[in-house]
Amino acid sequence: MSINLPPSSLPRVVIAGGGFAGLKLAQALDSSLFQIILIDHHNYHQFPPLIYQVASSGLEPSSIAFPFRAAFKRKKNFIFRLANVISVEPEQKQLITSVGEVPYDYLVLACGGTTNYFGNEQVAKHSLPMKTLYESMNLRNVLLQNIEKALVSDKPETREALLTVVIVGGGPSGVEIAGALAEMKRYVLPKDYPYMETDQFKIHLIDASPRLLQAMSEKSSRTAAEGLTSLGVEIHHNTMVTDYDGRVLTLGDGTKMNTRTVIWVSGIIANTVEGIQAESLGRGKRILVDGYNEVLGVPDVFALGDQCLMTADPAYPQGHPQMAQVAIQQAALLAKNLKARLTGAKQQTFRYKDLGSMATIGRNRAVAEIGKAKWGGFTAWLLWLVVHLRSILSVRNKVIVLLNWIWNYVTYDRSLRLILKRNVPVDPYQARQERLANRDTHVE
Amino acid sequence: MSINLPPSSLPRVVIAGGGFAGLKLAQALDSSLFQIILIDHHNYHQFPPLIYQVASSGLEPSSIAFPFRAAFKRKKNFIFRLANVISVEPEQKQLITSVGEVPYDYLVLACGGTTNYFGNEQVAKHSLPMKTLYESMNLRNVLLQNIEKALVSDKPETREALLTVVIVGGGPSGVEIAGALAEMKRYVLPKDYPYMETDQFKIHLIDASPRLLQAMSEKSSRTAAEGLTSLGVEIHHNTMVTDYDGRVLTLGDGTKMNTRTVIWVSGIIANTVEGIQAESLGRGKRILVDGYNEVLGVPDVFALGDQCLMTADPAYPQGHPQMAQVAIQQAALLAKNLKARLTGAKQQTFRYKDLGSMATIGRNRAVAEIGKAKWGGFTAWLLWLVVHLRSILSVRNKVIVLLNWIWNYVTYDRSLRLILKRNVPVDPYQARQERLANRDTHVE
Repeated sequence: MSINLPPSSLPRVVIAGGGFAGLKLAQALDSSLFQIILIDHHNYHQFPPLIYQVASSGLEPSSIAFPFRAAFKRKKNFIFRLANVISVEPEQKQLITSVGEVPYDYLVLACGGTTNYFGNEQVAKHSLPMKTLYESMNLRNVLLQNIEKALVSDKPETREALLTVVIVGGGPSGVEIAGALAEMKRYVLPKDYPYMETDQFKIHLIDASPRLLQAMSEKSSRTAAEGLTSLGVEIHHNTMVTDYDGRVLTLGDGTKMNTRTVIWVSGIIANTVEGIQAESLGRGKRILVDGYNEVLGVPDVFALGDQCLMTADPAYPQGHPQMAQVAIQQAALLAKNLKARLTGAKQQTFRYKDLGSMATIGRNRAVAEIGKAKWGGFTAWLLWLVVHLRSILSVRNKVIVLLNWIWNYVTYDRSLRLILKRNVPVDPYQARQERLANRDTHVE
Repeated sequence: MSINLPPSSLPRVVIAGGGFAGLKLAQALDSSLFQIILIDHHNYHQFPPLIYQVASSGLEPSSIAFPFRAAFKRKKNFIFRLANVISVEPEQKQLITSVGEVPYDYLVLACGGTTNYFGNEQVAKHSLPMKTLYESMNLRNVLLQNIEKALVSDKPETREALLTVVIVGGGPSGVEIAGALAEMKRYVLPKDYPYMETDQFKIHLIDASPRLLQAMSEKSSRTAAEGLTSLGVEIHHNTMVTDYDGRVLTLGDGTKMNTRTVIWVSGIIANTVEGIQAESLGRGKRILVDGYNEVLGVPDVFALGDQCLMTADPAYPQGHPQMAQVAIQQAALLAKNLKARLTGAKQQTFRYKDLGSMATIGRNRAVAEIGKAKWGGFTAWLLWLVVHLRSILSVRNKVIVLLNWIWNYVTYDRSLRLILKRNVPVDPYQARQERLANRDTHVE
C-alpha cells in the first residue's frame, strides 16, 4: 500500500515518534536539505512533565498538547502522518506503519518508553499508569469516581478501599502526583464533600529505595519527604509491591492494603520496534547506539532519547538517564550530524550536558538542583514554574497554563474536576459511537 | 441499598438531571426550607449551545462544563449524587437510581432529551449525534481522523467519502456546526494540510423543511442560507434522509452520497423514566404536565424543560419549544411554587416569556430575533457572543471561553485539533485501563 507521499529529490529523513526527541529533531533539521516525515500515533505532541497536573484536575489535556500540523505549518518539506509504527526493514530501507510502507534514506526511532511493571501481569492489569495524556484523563476519572462511589457505600471497608490512593514510585512523578493529591485533599475535598470526613481520604507513597528522588541530593530528598509528610502523605521507604488484584495490594513484607486506586509510576521500559534484533537491545529494551546515536550494526537507522542506550559518553558509561533533556540534546546534535553527512563535514559525538533536575511538591514548595546549586521551598518552586512554562510549545498554551496556575493558586481550587467519559447504561447509541471513534488509523 | 443521605427534618426535593432546568431549580430553591438532592449521571453541568464549538475544535470540553459540587459548594442542605436514574415508584414516593433508592417528598424530573433518529436504526447506528460533551469530543475525533485517513488513501472514491461531511438538520445546531466546519475548511485546512487540495473537503447540509431555522423569520432563514452558501456549504432543502449504512447515505429522492461522516442534529426525543405510565406521555415521549409542571395524575412529581409537555399555557396550546429558556423559566417558577406550597401562599401557573432566538453562522455573521426586532450580520454576531458568554456558569470558564474566542478570531485558527482517544493497537494495557475507567457508577 502506498502512503501517498509527495515526491522530492531530497534525501528523506523518517522520524518515528513525536516526543521530545522527535519534535526537536523535526524542528532542528534543515528542510532545504531533507524531506522530513514525522510519524506518530497521536496527532499532537504531549508534554509529560505536566501530565500529573492533568491527572489531578489542575490542567486541561489540551493545555499540554499541541497538534503537530499546527507546530509545523510554516516548515517546508515537512509531512506528518498519523500512524502506528510496526516494524523496520533495514535491507529494504523502509519503515512499515499501519497506513503503509515508508521508504527512508535515514530513519530515526524516537518512540520513547512505556510504563514498566517489571513483568508483574497482575499489577499491570489492575494499576493505573500516568505516562500519556489519555492515561492521565483516565486516572482523573477513576480518582473522582471512586470518591463518588465511597459516598454512597454503606460498607466501611468498601469506603476505606475507595478512599485509599497508593502511589508506587518515589521518583519525580510519584512525588509530584502525591503532592498534588494531598493538596486536593486539603483544599478541595472539604469544600466539595461537606458530608464526608476528608481524613478518610488516605495517600500512600511506596518507594523501593531508601529515599525519594534518588537522582537528586540527600538534602532534596529530605525536603521532599518532609514536604509530603506535612501534607499528610504516608511514605513507605524500602518497600516493594509484590501483588495487586484490584482490591488488595500486597507489599514485600507481606503487609496488605485495601485500595481501589494504585497509581504506578515506578519505571519505564523502552518501546520496541520489530526488525531491530535482540542483540541490538540493552537494559530496559533500550536500543544500543554509538556516539552518533546510530543503531549498532544497522546503518542509517538512529535511535534517540528514552528508546536508546548510549555507552560512548565517557561521563555516562552505563547510559544516560531517561530524561527529556537527554532526548532534546541528542536530537539537536543529530540534526547537525545529518547535515554534516550531506556536506561532508565532520560529525560530533554526543556529550550530555546536565542542566539539573527539579520536582514540585506543592504550593510554594519544590526542590531544584543545577550543578552544585540546590534550592528548596519557594525559590525552587518559582524556578520550576518558569522552566516548565518556558518549555510548553505554543504561546496560546503558555497563556492558558499560566492562567490556570494563577487561578488555582489564588482560589486554592482545581476547577477541572470533570469525569469526562461515556456513561455506560444510559445512551444506547454511545457504544456504537465509541466504536466509530476508536476505529484504528487503518484506511479500510 | 441505602444511598447514605444525611438526615434532615426538612421536606426533601429530589431533582433528577442537572441540565438547564435542574441546575436552575437547585439554584433557586430555598435551602433553608428544603433538603435538595441533585442526581445526574455526569458530575458536571454542560452548556449545550456551545457544544458545536467543542466539536469543531474551537473550545475545550472543560470550558463549557462545570462540576456540580463546585457550583453548589456554598449551598447548605444541598447534596449531589452521581447516579443513573432508573425508575420512579410514586406509591412508595421513591426514585430508584443506580446507587440505590432515594425517598422524596417532591420529585422533579429534568432528564432532558436525546437525539431522535425517528426510529431509523441504521441511521442511529452509523451517524454521529452532537448533544453531549462526550459526543462532541467523539465527533471532533472522527472529523480529524477522517482527514488523516484521506491523506494516506490512494483510492479516489475512498478519499471522497472520507472528505465529505453531511449534516442532517436545518435548525440552529445544524446551521452552527455547518458554519464552523466551513470556516475550518477555509482558514485551517490549507495551513494544516499543504499537500491536500482543500476543495475536496465538502460540507452538505440536509434540511427536511423548505427553509433553515424554521423557528425564526424568513428573513433570518435567508440570511443564514446565504451566509452558509457563501462559505461553501451545499444546502439541500426539502430533503429527507432515508438510510445510511456507514458508507452510503440515501436521500428521499433516491440520490446516494458517499460519506463517512454524517452528523445527525435533526431532532430530539425526551428521555423516559420507568414508572411514568404511557398515558402520561405526549408527543416525542414528553411527560404531560399541568400549568404548575406537575405530572398529570402523579402528585408531588414534576417534570421540567425538554422532558415535559405543557398545554396549559394559552399562547402555546401545542406545548413549548424544547429550548433552554423554557426550561430555565419553568424551573424558576417551580422553585417559587414549591415554597408557596409550604407556606400556603398561592401558586402561579406558567406563562412562557419568549426572549428571542439566535444562531451564529460564522465570523461576524449571525442572526438574532427578539420580539419584532431582527438583526443579521455583525450586530447579531456580537449579541450572540455576549448572550452566550453571560450564560456560561463560572467566571473562570467565561474568561477561558472569551480568550479562546479572541484567539481564534485574531489568528483565524482552531488550536484544539487534538484527536484525544485511546490508540488501539499500541499499548496492551489501555484496553484494561479503559475498562477500569468505564466501570459504571454502581458500587460493587
